[in-house]
Amino acid sequence: MGKTEEMRHTLSHVLAAAVRELYPNAKFGIGPAIEDGFYYDIDFGDTKITDADLNKIEKKMRGIIARKLPMEKRVVTKAEALNWARDEKQDYKIELIKELPESAEISFYDMGDLFTDLCKGPHVKDLSEIGPFKLVRIAGAYWRGDEKRPMLTRIYGVAFDTEKELDEYLKRQEEAKKRDHRKLGKELDLFCFSDLVGAGLPLFTPRGTELRELMANYSLSLRGREGFKKVWTPHITKTDLYKTSGHYAKFGDELFMVHSQVSGEDFAMKPMNCPHHAQIFASRPRTYRDMPVRYMEATTDYRDEKTGELGGLSRVRSLTQDDSHVFCRNDQIKEEVKKLVGIVKELYETMGMQKLRARLSYRSDEDKYLGDKKLWEMSQKQIKQAAIDNHLDYFEQEGEAAFYGPKIDFMAEDALGREHQLATIQLDFVQPERFGLEFTNQKGEKERPVMIHHATLGSIERFLSVFIEHTGGWFPFWCAPEQVRIVTVNNQVNDYVTKITDILDKIVLDKPLKYNELRYTVDDSDDSLGKKIRRATAMKIPAVLVVGPKDVEDKIVSIRLRDKEDKVKLTKLAEYLKELK
Amino acid sequence: MGKTEEMRHTLSHVLAAAVRELYPNAKFGIGPAIEDGFYYDIDFGDTKITDADLNKIEKKMRGIIARKLPMEKRVVTKAEALNWARDEKQDYKIELIKELPESAEISFYDMGDLFTDLCKGPHVKDLSEIGPFKLVRIAGAYWRGDEKRPMLTRIYGVAFDTEKELDEYLKRQEEAKKRDHRKLGKELDLFCFSDLVGAGLPLFTPRGTELRELMANYSLSLRGREGFKKVWTPHITKTDLYKTSGHYAKFGDELFMVHSQVSGEDFAMKPMNCPHHAQIFASRPRTYRDMPVRYMEATTDYRDEKTGELGGLSRVRSLTQDDSHVFCRNDQIKEEVKKLVGIVKELYETMGMQKLRARLSYRSDEDKYLGDKKLWEMSQKQIKQAAIDNHLDYFEQEGEAAFYGPKIDFMAEDALGREHQLATIQLDFVQPERFGLEFTNQKGEKERPVMIHHATLGSIERFLSVFIEHTGGWFPFWCAPEQVRIVTVNNQVNDYVTKITDILDKIVLDKPLKYNELRYTVDDSDDSLGKKIRRATAMKIPAVLVVGPKDVEDKIVSIRLRDKEDKVKLTKLAEYLKELK
Repeated sequence: MGKTEEMRHTLSHVLAAAVRELYPNAKFGIGPAIEDGFYYDIDFGDTKITDADLNKIEKKMRGIIARKLPMEKRVVTKAEALNWARDEKQDYKIELIKELPESAEISFYDMGDLFTDLCKGPHVKDLSEIGPFKLVRIAGAYWRGDEKRPMLTRIYGVAFDTEKELDEYLKRQEEAKKRDHRKLGKELDLFCFSDLVGAGLPLFTPRGTELRELMANYSLSLRGREGFKKVWTPHITKTDLYKTSGHYAKFGDELFMVHSQVSGEDFAMKPMNCPHHAQIFASRPRTYRDMPVRYMEATTDYRDEKTGELGGLSRVRSLTQDDSHVFCRNDQIKEEVKKLVGIVKELYETMGMQKLRARLSYRSDEDKYLGDKKLWEMSQKQIKQAAIDNHLDYFEQEGEAAFYGPKIDFMAEDALGREHQLATIQLDFVQPERFGLEFTNQKGEKERPVMIHHATLGSIERFLSVFIEHTGGWFPFWCAPEQVRIVTVNNQVNDYVTKITDILDKIVLDKPLKYNELRYTVDDSDDSLGKKIRRATAMKIPAVLVVGPKDVEDKIVSIRLRDKEDKVKLTKLAEYLKELK
Repeated sequence: MGKTEEMRHTLSHVLAAAVRELYPNAKFGIGPAIEDGFYYDIDFGDTKITDADLNKIEKKMRGIIARKLPMEKRVVTKAEALNWARDEKQDYKIELIKELPESAEISFYDMGDLFTDLCKGPHVKDLSEIGPFKLVRIAGAYWRGDEKRPMLTRIYGVAFDTEKELDEYLKRQEEAKKRDHRKLGKELDLFCFSDLVGAGLPLFTPRGTELRELMANYSLSLRGREGFKKVWTPHITKTDLYKTSGHYAKFGDELFMVHSQVSGEDFAMKPMNCPHHAQIFASRPRTYRDMPVRYMEATTDYRDEKTGELGGLSRVRSLTQDDSHVFCRNDQIKEEVKKLVGIVKELYETMGMQKLRARLSYRSDEDKYLGDKKLWEMSQKQIKQAAIDNHLDYFEQEGEAAFYGPKIDFMAEDALGREHQLATIQLDFVQPERFGLEFTNQKGEKERPVMIHHATLGSIERFLSVFIEHTGGWFPFWCAPEQVRIVTVNNQVNDYVTKITDILDKIVLDKPLKYNELRYTVDDSDDSLGKKIRRATAMKIPAVLVVGPKDVEDKIVSIRLRDKEDKVKLTKLAEYLKELK
């Protein structure tokens, strides 16, 4: 445990000491250090603690810290420990002590003579070592995580070594709250939910649909360049498909089951697309000349998630994967993986999430891994070489592979420094076997291909939940649902607005996605200019063109971007907009 | 019954007479005239009749016709009729006669003294009036359509007034067989089926996906031009949505029911998209300024069709609609319908199916129609005016409207002269009511919008089944999955091929769909030129560029189209290809 963690852990004791002074009947559960801070689970009896009480408790904590009390460890016998807990009427501690093995060393920590707690430690030497901290929120937590036991009150605090770190953390939290994609999704009119349709089943409005299509099209366009062809598969299948693929045995519980009232047949909604794509591969004979065969499809899969776990777009029941499958010869693995890694790097660079880490997951010596061991070893080497060739920031983990093959998972960092696991490249030696896939090799023999699963965005819905928070709703110019809004000062400028829209109608962006026609609207309503501009800003429109009589006279356009204003000649407008990032 | 129908009906008697001569124990069911010909259902006992027997039967028929026997009606009593049937051991006739009401006139038709049949008639006067005919096929048919009754042998014949008509009919049938979209779908590698996935659930290969995407994108692009915006909705919903919309009560049996194993909730796969789109409309307040709100979505609906009715793409369980919904004010109906009619005309013109008929379906005086009668009358007038303004070939039918509003259905004629009902425009006064949709009108009051459902292609799968047969797989240049194939005479021309592909890479078609990049492949395999050209022709590639040393020398490209060959200068190649239809 590092110094910072010790300090955070001590703070949980200080929190408990302060609570005991204010609420003498409080009973204490456990109080560990956690990432960024600490918490303590406390039973306040009938007293209801709210956020408003945090100030009072925090003030009491600061008073205790000012006394610079020492933190001293004291080893006791189990009997002594139990006596203490009984004297103090600390029922939860009694339960904890009783469960300790007879052989265990039991220790107390005394905070001067103010407060004693059962604790393994370690702690700081004395309270003068406590850094800047803040109590931040209250939550409910079942004792020992068991919903049949009492619900305790968990008080969370954050603590850092320096004021600067604390400030930064609090600002980041504030920012994250403002950027919450569920909030922005509503404000920017990107998606909605309907009680009649159900939880975890978002409906995308025109703006949100624009955004998701741009993401999907861009993602697939990168693979299109590398020879991937789109296919189309239905969203349901007889369960036979998953019984053959092996998914039914493994994931049967998570399937949405579909029943035909007419034929009585049992179907399932597809939770992934590989078995469907394998059927297309199997639909005609293939030779070595056809390989690799590369299919891609942005299609919606359905997974039966728990309602309680559904929130905004982070976790949905209808998840659209930008999915693809390569069927290739063993000696083509490296080249194919290398292409895919290149695509991942390019896409996340475009999204402004260039900080990528890659985990190469290999097999261990356990026998849960299916497929030829030599093939595993050969392909793990190929994956690693592809990572090196692409200058990936990678690390290797044995025993983390899927049972069907090794894989690369990518972690992308967002603007708030949070890491998200999004893209994945997975080798599969098992499905080709189960579906009996084959091609005729150069010797005229039947050979088994390898499958490579890949999604660059992962699920488009989940990617959007990350991307909306990453950008705070200020989308890059190329993918903003509404890129430009013209707002008029009065209706005398209408002819000039037509001149501008004639220019806008001809603008087609080429990067990063080709044939990306400019999306704009005109606000020539009777509202005041101020109101119109506020409305445009609230919708986070990247470029607002304000058109007044002076602009008409000077043949210019006044442009308000997020962080600056520009005046551009009408003749230079197209060029200017095409350069926006 | 017209003269031709009488002749066809008489032919079914001649067929029966011939069969009785050849198979004295045959028992006869019924033998009506049908479109293009006639049939007779016959029980041959243990004798197995095959296509090979048709010649023999037909020859016997021609012999009978040559005798020019008269066809004479004779009215009998029920007892007489029963006696005849019992004497003849015609069990099926006995059954039919027994069921006749006592009051019914029962008549026989005597073919001279050769053959007598129970029949209402009318028939031709004598067999000299029989026109050209041909027996064409044999099928099984349950007696009275009841699968628990015996399976009879149905012999089909076709008959026309002139040899020319018969010839044309047979040629058309021959052509239709060659064009069968199930056959072409396989030959041209457009789609496939998998037993593991299930009947009625086609999987589209890269070529088929290209085709279906071009169709969908083109269809939506026409509406995009008119202010329609794409939305996205999930493929499942809680059944609550359909209980509210009223679909559950009406179509509950045809729904694929989805069950959540995790939450126990009941979902259904969407069989249409209107209720989902209505939820998006309802997701925020709307004012008169927002109207019309226009949503479109190419999305897959699921309908639980009987397995026996599934065939190729004509009838599928997964049908992708190019669907849209307008939410508008009452006074906007005409303008919106007019736009949609214009779009339908433009699309079918592009598809080479310019012969369109439109049925305007109105309400009758029955009280099954929901919604305000005045609104019905007003909107029926608006629909008619839209049809007139668009110079539609239309006809009106009272009592053919949906219960929720009047509609226009379009019938398009294909290259074989067959009519297909594809596009539809339907007004809906009911769903806005059921979902409580509203907008604030200019007076500040809440007002109910009207919904206009429209699909231009209808279901993309069904449209493709028609379009593949309409074109015979020779797709128009703009939408051929592979538009150009380069075939090389030998490998000495490879540099020149690169020059050609550099040109092809830059070709982007603009009509009828924008940003349509040229799709081509190169066949530089070691196979003989003849084999390569045959392969390209078999795949019905619109333009095959044959490249040999002479072409390199002359800086030209030899182009083989479906019906001609051209030599084009390399510098004119792009221009030439862009002009292809």
